[in-house]
Amino acid sequence: MKIVLATRNKGKIAELRRILDGFDIVGLEEFPEIEDVVETGVTFEENALLKAVAVAKAAGLPAVADDSGLCVDVLNGMPGVFSARWSGRHGADEANIDLLLAQVGDVPDHLLTAYFACCAALALPTGETRVAVGTLPGSLIRERRGAHGFGYDPIFVPDGDVRTTAELSPGEKDAISHRGRAFRALAPIVTELLVTGA
Amino acid sequence: MKIVLATRNKGKIAELRRILDGFDIVGLEEFPEIEDVVETGVTFEENALLKAVAVAKAAGLPAVADDSGLCVDVLNGMPGVFSARWSGRHGADEANIDLLLAQVGDVPDHLLTAYFACCAALALPTGETRVAVGTLPGSLIRERRGAHGFGYDPIFVPDGDVRTTAELSPGEKDAISHRGRAFRALAPIVTELLVTGA
Repeated sequence: MKIVLATRNKGKIAELRRILDGFDIVGLEEFPEIEDVVETGVTFEENALLKAVAVAKAAGLPAVADDSGLCVDVLNGMPGVFSARWSGRHGADEANIDLLLAQVGDVPDHLLTAYFACCAALALPTGETRVAVGTLPGSLIRERRGAHGFGYDPIFVPDGDVRTTAELSPGEKDAISHRGRAFRALAPIVTELLVTGA
Repeated sequence: MKIVLATRNKGKIAELRRILDGFDIVGLEEFPEIEDVVETGVTFEENALLKAVAVAKAAGLPAVADDSGLCVDVLNGMPGVFSARWSGRHGADEANIDLLLAQVGDVPDHLLTAYFACCAALALPTGETRVAVGTLPGSLIRERRGAHGFGYDPIFVPDGDVRTTAELSPGEKDAISHRGRAFRALAPIVTELLVTGA
């Protein structure tokens, strides 16, 4: 059965294919007529649902979308849904990291706890929806380390490790990441809804 | 009775003199040997107490300090204690406003609610402390208006008004501001502790 993942990111599509085994996962590149959804939500769930519902309706197929971000405790969970545009420009990873590190410059090290969070949403063309969440707790460091990943990975060390998420291999990161956890939590829900029709 | 206000800002000293009538309010300019306190707290109360306690101890006199900021609801109350250094540099008002407006660029207007908050703290040389808080609810606009005030005043409209706090006269702003409210709430506590010795 075909499911659209509401992204044009090939890495994300490959990741979901590994997790949602048995489904035919396709990306938005197969639907060039579908426009990008503006993320006007103020929670991960709102944004994930906005994207999944819009794509399911436009494509006439079940759609999966996610919204993710870094939640820093002393910033009351921000950058949160604003993670990709924290410095004011969408997707400016380096500027976002520079800004975050400057903002917490006077905060003592032991207070630099944070977590990555992801909400994964499934929407059917009928409008029916389901969501699942995943988190990865850890803390921030003040100097970048590692060349893998993207976003805030170079300054985030997961609890129980000494490496940043940018120093983990893609497989190691999949196994523990907020996105991996959210998609694995969503997988049985997708199966239940689409295969058994429950 | 002499009270030190932990600031070198003449406007703040004049404001506290008007509110704490009957006390001899002096600023840090009379104590050039006292170093600036780094605001390592993550709440307004922590930072206000850090400053008041440090100055009371160093000066051997009762000291009053405050910490204030703008709390934006969709940012979970941030910039908050990071208001003055939101863009990464302390006191860069224009850059801070530019960044905040860019961050909420995709957020619908009706969700741009915010409030100014202030914690005012009194500390005695003995280590005894008291705090009082004040807030001013309102919402953000996307274009600056007004030439008074400082910080985020040009983009903040208090509830019940159509003008920004930068369009209010200093007297109008004193009457409703978070700082005015916090200091007026602290005044009877100061009197009680220092005059009646309760």
